[in-house]
Amino acid sequence: MTQAAVPSLLERIKGLAKSWIEVASSAKSGETLSFAPDLPEDDLDRLRPQLRGCLDGKGGEVSARARAAALGREYLSLSAEGRRRFLKLVADEFGPDPEAVDQAIAALQQAPADKRAGVEQRLREVLEPPRLRLLTQFNALPEGVKFLVDLRAELAGMAKGDAGLRALENDLKGLLSAWFDVGFLELRRLTWASPANVLEKLIAYEAVHTIQGWDDLKNRLDSDRRLYGFFHPRMPAEPLIFVEVALVQGLSGDIQQLLDLNAPAGNPDTADTAIFYSINNAQRGLNGISFGNFLIKRVVEELTREFKNLKNFATLSPIPGFCPWLESRLAEGEAGLLSGIEHRALAQISNGLTAKGSLKALLADPAWVADDHLAETLRGPLMRLAARYLAEERKSGVRALDPVAHFHLSNGARIERINWRADTSAKGLSQSCAMMVNYLYKLDDIEANHETYAGKGKVVISSAVKTLLKG
Amino acid sequence: MTQAAVPSLLERIKGLAKSWIEVASSAKSGETLSFAPDLPEDDLDRLRPQLRGCLDGKGGEVSARARAAALGREYLSLSAEGRRRFLKLVADEFGPDPEAVDQAIAALQQAPADKRAGVEQRLREVLEPPRLRLLTQFNALPEGVKFLVDLRAELAGMAKGDAGLRALENDLKGLLSAWFDVGFLELRRLTWASPANVLEKLIAYEAVHTIQGWDDLKNRLDSDRRLYGFFHPRMPAEPLIFVEVALVQGLSGDIQQLLDLNAPAGNPDTADTAIFYSINNAQRGLNGISFGNFLIKRVVEELTREFKNLKNFATLSPIPGFCPWLESRLAEGEAGLLSGIEHRALAQISNGLTAKGSLKALLADPAWVADDHLAETLRGPLMRLAARYLAEERKSGVRALDPVAHFHLSNGARIERINWRADTSAKGLSQSCAMMVNYLYKLDDIEANHETYAGKGKVVISSAVKTLLKG
Amino acid sequence: MTQAAVPSLLERIKGLAKSWIEVASSAKSGETLSFAPDLPEDDLDRLRPQLRGCLDGKGGEVSARARAAALGREYLSLSAEGRRRFLKLVADEFGPDPEAVDQAIAALQQAPADKRAGVEQRLREVLEPPRLRLLTQFNALPEGVKFLVDLRAELAGMAKGDAGLRALENDLKGLLSAWFDVGFLELRRLTWASPANVLEKLIAYEAVHTIQGWDDLKNRLDSDRRLYGFFHPRMPAEPLIFVEVALVQGLSGDIQQLLDLNAPAGNPDTADTAIFYSINNAQRGLNGISFGNFLIKRVVEELTREFKNLKNFATLSPIPGFCPWLESRLAEGEAGLLSGIEHRALAQISNGLTAKGSLKALLADPAWVADDHLAETLRGPLMRLAARYLAEERKSGVRALDPVAHFHLSNGARIERINWRADTSAKGLSQSCAMMVNYLYKLDDIEANHETYAGKGKVVISSAVKTLLKG
Amino acid sequence: MTQAAVPSLLERIKGLAKSWIEVASSAKSGETLSFAPDLPEDDLDRLRPQLRGCLDGKGGEVSARARAAALGREYLSLSAEGRRRFLKLVADEFGPDPEAVDQAIAALQQAPADKRAGVEQRLREVLEPPRLRLLTQFNALPEGVKFLVDLRAELAGMAKGDAGLRALENDLKGLLSAWFDVGFLELRRLTWASPANVLEKLIAYEAVHTIQGWDDLKNRLDSDRRLYGFFHPRMPAEPLIFVEVALVQGLSGDIQQLLDLNAPAGNPDTADTAIFYSINNAQRGLNGISFGNFLIKRVVEELTREFKNLKNFATLSPIPGFCPWLESRLAEGEAGLLSGIEHRALAQISNGLTAKGSLKALLADPAWVADDHLAETLRGPLMRLAARYLAEERKSGVRALDPVAHFHLSNGARIERINWRADTSAKGLSQSCAMMVNYLYKLDDIEANHETYAGKGKVVISSAVKTLLKG
Repeated sequence: MTQAAVPSLLERIKGLAKSWIEVASSAKSGETLSFAPDLPEDDLDRLRPQLRGCLDGKGGEVSARARAAALGREYLSLSAEGRRRFLKLVADEFGPDPEAVDQAIAALQQAPADKRAGVEQRLREVLEPPRLRLLTQFNALPEGVKFLVDLRAELAGMAKGDAGLRALENDLKGLLSAWFDVGFLELRRLTWASPANVLEKLIAYEAVHTIQGWDDLKNRLDSDRRLYGFFHPRMPAEPLIFVEVALVQGLSGDIQQLLDLNAPAGNPDTADTAIFYSINNAQRGLNGISFGNFLIKRVVEELTREFKNLKNFATLSPIPGFCPWLESRLAEGEAGLLSGIEHRALAQISNGLTAKGSLKALLADPAWVADDHLAETLRGPLMRLAARYLAEERKSGVRALDPVAHFHLSNGARIERINWRADTSAKGLSQSCAMMVNYLYKLDDIEANHETYAGKGKVVISSAVKTLLKG
Repeated sequence: MTQAAVPSLLERIKGLAKSWIEVASSAKSGETLSFAPDLPEDDLDRLRPQLRGCLDGKGGEVSARARAAALGREYLSLSAEGRRRFLKLVADEFGPDPEAVDQAIAALQQAPADKRAGVEQRLREVLEPPRLRLLTQFNALPEGVKFLVDLRAELAGMAKGDAGLRALENDLKGLLSAWFDVGFLELRRLTWASPANVLEKLIAYEAVHTIQGWDDLKNRLDSDRRLYGFFHPRMPAEPLIFVEVALVQGLSGDIQQLLDLNAPAGNPDTADTAIFYSINNAQRGLNGISFGNFLIKRVVEELTREFKNLKNFATLSPIPGFCPWLESRLAEGEAGLLSGIEHRALAQISNGLTAKGSLKALLADPAWVADDHLAETLRGPLMRLAARYLAEERKSGVRALDPVAHFHLSNGARIERINWRADTSAKGLSQSCAMMVNYLYKLDDIEANHETYAGKGKVVISSAVKTLLKG
Repeated sequence: MTQAAVPSLLERIKGLAKSWIEVASSAKSGETLSFAPDLPEDDLDRLRPQLRGCLDGKGGEVSARARAAALGREYLSLSAEGRRRFLKLVADEFGPDPEAVDQAIAALQQAPADKRAGVEQRLREVLEPPRLRLLTQFNALPEGVKFLVDLRAELAGMAKGDAGLRALENDLKGLLSAWFDVGFLELRRLTWASPANVLEKLIAYEAVHTIQGWDDLKNRLDSDRRLYGFFHPRMPAEPLIFVEVALVQGLSGDIQQLLDLNAPAGNPDTADTAIFYSINNAQRGLNGISFGNFLIKRVVEELTREFKNLKNFATLSPIPGFCPWLESRLAEGEAGLLSGIEHRALAQISNGLTAKGSLKALLADPAWVADDHLAETLRGPLMRLAARYLAEERKSGVRALDPVAHFHLSNGARIERINWRADTSAKGLSQSCAMMVNYLYKLDDIEANHETYAGKGKVVISSAVKTLLKG
Repeated sequence: MTQAAVPSLLERIKGLAKSWIEVASSAKSGETLSFAPDLPEDDLDRLRPQLRGCLDGKGGEVSARARAAALGREYLSLSAEGRRRFLKLVADEFGPDPEAVDQAIAALQQAPADKRAGVEQRLREVLEPPRLRLLTQFNALPEGVKFLVDLRAELAGMAKGDAGLRALENDLKGLLSAWFDVGFLELRRLTWASPANVLEKLIAYEAVHTIQGWDDLKNRLDSDRRLYGFFHPRMPAEPLIFVEVALVQGLSGDIQQLLDLNAPAGNPDTADTAIFYSINNAQRGLNGISFGNFLIKRVVEELTREFKNLKNFATLSPIPGFCPWLESRLAEGEAGLLSGIEHRALAQISNGLTAKGSLKALLADPAWVADDHLAETLRGPLMRLAARYLAEERKSGVRALDPVAHFHLSNGARIERINWRADTSAKGLSQSCAMMVNYLYKLDDIEANHETYAGKGKVVISSAVKTLLKG
C-alpha cells in the first residue's frame, strides 16, 4: 500500500552506518566491484575469488567480514537474474569437500564404539558447507539479519527444482533457526506511543484483516485493545509475528463490530474475555521456524497479570479453507450435503433467482449475504457444513484440514462457536461464506486438549458445535 | 574477591522471573523432581524419561521448553559428581541414531552427482544429535544463555579423556558459536555511570592487572580513560571481553604510573596516543570463539571518531612466557645467553651476593628489581633476551612462542618497544622480569603486517627492537 | 483534522494513573463531588470549602494535593459556563489578604534602609495570592502541567474585561514562566522512528504549511530533512515549539518543491544550506513565554555538528501581513504605489479583464497567479512593494510591521531574498501574493545584526533587496 | 569519605558540555574575565557591568544566558571570600527599584476595589528583584540546577546577620520551591543495577546509619530490601531524599541485625512488615522545601503494589534529642526522674563504680551498654524516660520536642514501640542511650492520627508505650 510504503531493504542499507563497508573499502583499496545487474560470466569470474577471499582466512576475520559486507551490498544492486546467478555460484561451488566427506565416512565405518562420538562429529564438521560460513558473514551488514531473512524468502522462490539452491535455502534455515531461537525473542507490546516506523510495518504486514490506514491502526491500539509482537534484538523495527487482542464481555462473534472505528472503547478492567482476532507471521523468510504458540502463551501470561477479571481467552478466526472445500464438494453433487427439507427451502426461496435452486447457484452471487431472508435460509445448512468441515475433515487422515483449525487445536484450543455473518467482507465471503470461529483456550484444559488432538487425533469441540453437527 | 563477590548463577536464577518455571510446574502438576545431589542410579532413571519428554514433541514445544527449564534448575542444585553424571547421561544416550546415520551414508554413496547436495544435507541432519536440541532448550531459563556458557566451562573441565563429554562440549561450542556471532555483539562503553552490577564484573574478571577495589575501578574510568566491552543482548550484565584504554601523550612505558590513583587525569582532547593496557576475555565458556580482534578494530574506530588528535594506537602488554622460557634456557647453561662482558659485570656486581654470580642466581631473589645498581647491570642482557624471546622464539616453528605476542602480531601490530621496570608487581616480576612491551597498531600498516606474519611467518619489529637484538 | 485527531486532555486524564486520585478518594471517603455542568450557586457553595481545604494545611500536604487533583478532574467535566464560574470563584475569593498587604506596606514605609530588603520580601510574600498555591497543586494531576497550560489558554479567552480573571491568568503565566524556563527544556529530534502519538501532534499543530497526512509527514522526516522540537520533561508527548529544516544546495525559493512528496531525497552530507521552512508554537497556553530564538540557536549548533559542509542557515518564510497591508494601501489609492510605466503595463494587460485595470482589480481574482503572462507583469511591482513592506513599514515606529520579519530580525537575521510565486496555495496567495522570503542567519553577523535592529532600529537587508527597493 | 568521594560540582562542570559557554565566548570574543580568587575591588567593578549585561536585554536572551553561564563558571573559581563578595554585590545592587515600588504602592492605595487585583499584581512585579532573574539565568549552566541548589546552601552559611544576603537566599528558596514542586519529582527505585555514580551518592549522603562501603551498600540493596529516592529531571544523578526499607516478619527492633552483612536475605514475598529504617534529605540547599511525607506515601503505594502480603508499615528510628534532653534534666537533679526503688537499684549496682550511684554517673561511661547486668538495671528507667520524652515533651508547647517524632507524628504515624539496646553504635549511644523507636503507619488511621496530632496537639501512642509511661 502506498500510504505506509515500507522502504526496501536496499534503500535502508544504503543510508545506514557504513563502518564495516568503510573498513572493507579501506582494506581493499582501489578495488571496486560494481557488477553488471545480470552478473554476466566475466563478473562471475571476478566474484568467485572475492567469495574465496571471505573464507581463506588471509587478511583476518575482520577483513573477511568487511569483504562479505561489500559483496552483500553488490548482491542487493543486482537484478533478479543476477541474484539467481550469484546464489547459484554460492550454492554449487561452496559445498562440502567430497573427498573429506568420503574420508570421514570411511573413518566412521571403522571407528570402535567408544570413539564413535568423536568421529561422528568430525563427519558433521566436514559436511558443514563453506557456503554456510559465507552466509553467516553477511551478518556484518548493518541490517545483516534482515538481509539473510529476506535472502531466504528470495531463495525459496528460486529454489524449485534446483537441488543446489534448495540446499542453500536449507542451510540458511538452519542458521536462522539457531538465531531465532525463541529464547532470543522479545515480547513487545505495541501502542500508539510506539515508533511510527514499527507501526507502519503492522499496516504493511497485517494480512488477516487489512488495516485501512493510520486511523484504523490507532483504533486497534485503543485502551480496550492489546497488540503484542515478537522481535529479535538485531531486527528491532521488524515484528516477526504479532497478535491483536480485544478485551470484551463474552465471546465476540462479529469482526465488523470489533473493527468499527466509531464504536466507543470498552472498559478493559471489567472485561472477562480476551479475543485474539488476528495473528500474523510477518517474515516470509522465517517460514517453518514457528513461534506462534509461544506468542499466545506469553500474551496470555501478560494479560492475566494486567487484567484480574479475565476468564476466557478465545480467538475470532477465519475458516480459510471452507469455501474451496465446499466448492469441490458441491462440484461432486449436493445430495449428501443438504437434507431434503433444506433442499426444498432453497428451491422455494430461489424461485425467482435460478432455475436450479441449488446451493452452488445461490452462493455464486455474493449478494446473498446482504439478503436477510435468503441468508436466514442458508444459515442452517452452511453452519452445519462448516462444523462438519472443521471437526471432521482431515489432511493425510490426521490433522484438521483447515490450517487455522489445525494451528489452534495443536495449541490446545477447542472449537467453541461458529458465528454467522461474522465477516461479510469480500475476503470473508469468498473464504468462509462470511462465517468465523471462536477457538477457546481454557487454561486448565490446554494440556489435555493438546494431548487429545496431537496424541489421539481427536478434535475437541463444544456442545454447541456438537449440536450443529447433529443438526 | 569478597568486596565485589559476584553472585553465583544459581543464586541469580533463583530470584528471577519464573514464568517458564511456573508454566513447567503447572504443566506437570504434582510431579516434583528433587534429585539427590549426587544423582544416584534411581534418580538417573527418573531423569531419563524427563529428558526424553523434552524431545518427543508430545505436549508441544512450549511445555518442552518449560520442562527443560525445570531440569536446568535441577542441574544447578546438584553436586559436582551429580552434574557429571547428568551430563554423561545426556552425552551418551542422546547421540545421533546410528542406524539412521548408516542409512544416510548408504544413500550418499549411491547418490548421483546432481542429487548429492540434498543427500549430504540429509546426512548432516541425522548426525545432528538430539542432545544438541536438549541443550538449546535450556535457553528458556531466565538466564539461559549464561547457563549454557557456564555449562561449557564446566564441561571443559570434565571432558578430558571422555569422548562422549568431549562431543557434548563440542556440540555446545557449535551452538554458542552461532549465537555469539560477532554480528550480534554490542560494543558498550562502560563508565562510572554504568550499572554497579556490571562494573563489579570488571573487578571480578580483570586478570591482567587486578583491580584493587572500587576506587581503583573509578580511576580506570576517569576522563582520560576508556573502557569498552562486547556484550550479548541476552547477557546484558556480563561483559564477554573488555579492553582498558588510556589516552596519553607518547607511548606509555610504565604500568605503575598508569594505574596510580593519585596521578591527575590528563586532557584526553590533546592526547595523541591510545594505550590499550589490558584486554580480558571474561567468559571461560566462550574459549575458542574469538572476538578480540573485532573489539580492537571497533574501539579504534570509536576513539578515532571521538578524539581528533589521536595518531597512535598501542598496547602496554606483559610478556607472560618470558620468565618460564628464560628459566628453561638458564637450566641448560648460561653460555649462549650472555656475552663475556655481561658475565663479568654480573660476577662483579654479585660478588658479595653469590658465589657463582650467575644470572639465574641473581634473578632468584626478587629484590634485584628494587636495587638500582643491580637492575642497571641486568637491564642490558634482560632487554636483549626479551627481544630475542619475542622476535625469534617460535611454537611449532610458526607462531610466536609468546601468546600475547602472537595475538597482537596476528592482528597486524608490530613489536615497538620493550620497557624496563615497567611492571614491578610480584606477577610482573615473575612472568616478565618486570618488563612490558608496546605493540603498535599503525592503521596503514595493519593489513601488510598481518600478511607478513600470518602469510610469511615473519615477525614485524621496530628499529629499536632490531638494535636490541643485535646488542 | 480527523485523521490524527488528538485526544482531549479530559479523555487522556480519565485513562491515566490514578494514584493521587485514589489517595484523594480514600482520604475523603464517601464524599463525592459531582457538580452540575454549569456549576449552579449551591455547587459553588460546596466548591468553596473544598478549595479552602486545599490551602488550610489540615490533613497535610499530601491530602491537599490529592484533593486538588480531584477538583481538577471536576473542573474538566464542567461546561464552558461552569468552568468560568469555577475560575471566577478562584480568582475573586483567593486573592491576597488586603489587611496583611496594608500592614506590610506600612512596615515598608517605615523601614530603615538596611532593613528594607527583608521588608520588601515580606510584602512580596503577602502579595502572593493563595489562588496561585491552588493552581500549583493541580500539578498533582497525572498530566498536571498540560492541564495548567491548557487552563491558561482557556483563561486568556475568558479574561477580557475581567480584572480578576486577568490577574489569575497572569499568576498562571508567572508560574509557567518559572516551570518552562529554557534550562528545563529538552531539544529532541523527531524522526520517523519517533512515537506515533508525538508525531500526530505535529500534524495537528503545524499551522504554517498544513501537513496533509502521514505520507506528507514522513516526507518531512526524510533523510534530507530534520525536525527539532523543545519538550518539557513533564509533557513528554507534547512539543512546545518545533522547526522543520530542509538540507539543500543554495537557497530554496519554492515551498511547493520542498514539500513535493514525489521529489527524491537529496544527499544531506553534501548540502551547503539549511532551510528553516516552518516554525510553530504548539501551545497557546505558553503565549508570551518565548523560546523560539533558543530553538533556532540550538538547532544551528546541532546541524553544524552533524553536517560539516553546511555554510548557510536561512528560512523560507511567509509574509503574513503583506496582503492586508497592501489592501489598505490600495484602498487609499494606487498613485503612490505604482510607477507610470507599471500602471500602463497593467492597464494594457488587463484590457479584456477589467475596465479599471487597477492592481486592486487584478489581484481580486486569484487566477492571476496561474496566468504566466499576467503574473510576469505583476512580478515587478509586487516584489518591490513586498520589499518596501518588509524593510520600511514599522509598528509603533520601531519594530518591523510584519510579525515574522520582526521575529527573525530580532534574532539577528537579515532579509536576503524575496521569492516570486514561492507559495501558490490559497493561503500563500491571500497572505503574501504567493511570495516568500529567505531570512539569512550568517553566524558571524548575528550579534551585529541584532544590535543594528534592536539597538538602532535599522532593518538589515541584502543588496538584492536594496536593488528591489530602488526599482 | 575517600572511598566514594563525590566529585565537586566545579570538577564536574569543567568537564561537561560546553555549548552555552562556547556561545558565550564566541558572542563576547576577546573578552576574558578571569577574576582574582578574592574578587578585589577592581574585579568587582568589572563584574558589575557583566551582571547588568545579563539583564538589559541587549544582545538577546540567548546571549544573556550564555553570559550568565560564563559568570557562573567564574563564581566557581573564586575563594570563599570572593564568593561572598560576588553574592553581596548581586544581593545589594540588584534589588527592586525603590521608586517603582513607591509608585506602585501609591497606585494601590488609590485603586478602586474592582481594579485592585491588577494593581496588586503590578506591585508584585516591581517587587520582584532583578537579582532573581540573574539567578534564574544560571540555569543555563550544564548542571545549573545543582549549581543553584548548592549556591543556596552556601548562602545559608553566609547570610547570618546580613539582610541583603538573607533576602537573596530567600529569593532562591522561592525559585527552587517552584522548580522542585513535588509534581516534577520522579520516584526511582535504586538497585544494585543502578549507575555507580548515583550509588556513590548514597554512600556519601547517608547520615542516619553510615554506609561503610560498597559491600554494605550492596547488602542494603539485597532482594529483601528496597531503596527509593526522589529525583529531579535536571539533576538525574543526585537523589534529593531517599528512604531505605527492609521487608521482614513483624516489627524489627534491632538495627544491628538489619545491617548485618552476614545475615541471609529473607523472602520478601512472605514479609508482612516494611521497616523504613533510614530516611535522608540529601541536599542542604533544599532545606525547608519538604517532600519527605510525599516520599513515604509514594513508597507505601509502590510496596503495596509489589508485595501482596504486606500489612504493616513502620519505621525503626533514632531518638536524636533524648540524651541531650536527659542530660539537661539530670543537671537539674535526678529526684523527679527516678523512683525510689530505681534509685536504690542503681546505687546498689554502682557500688564499686561510683560514689554517687547516680544515673548521670552511670551513663557517663559508655561501657554500660555492654554490661548485661548493669544494662538490665538501667532498662526500666531509661525506657520509661524515653517514653516520657517522646510523648510528653513539647517545643513551644505544641509540637513534639524530638524532631524525628514530630516528623512522623505529623505524617499520621503513632509511637508503637521503644526498643532496648537497638543501636549500640557510638552515635546511637550518645544520642538515644542505644534505644530506637518504631513509628507505625496504619493506613486506615493515618488521616485520623494526623488530625489528632496536628489539629488537637495530642500524640498518638500504642498501649505498650502507655504502659511504659505509667511504669
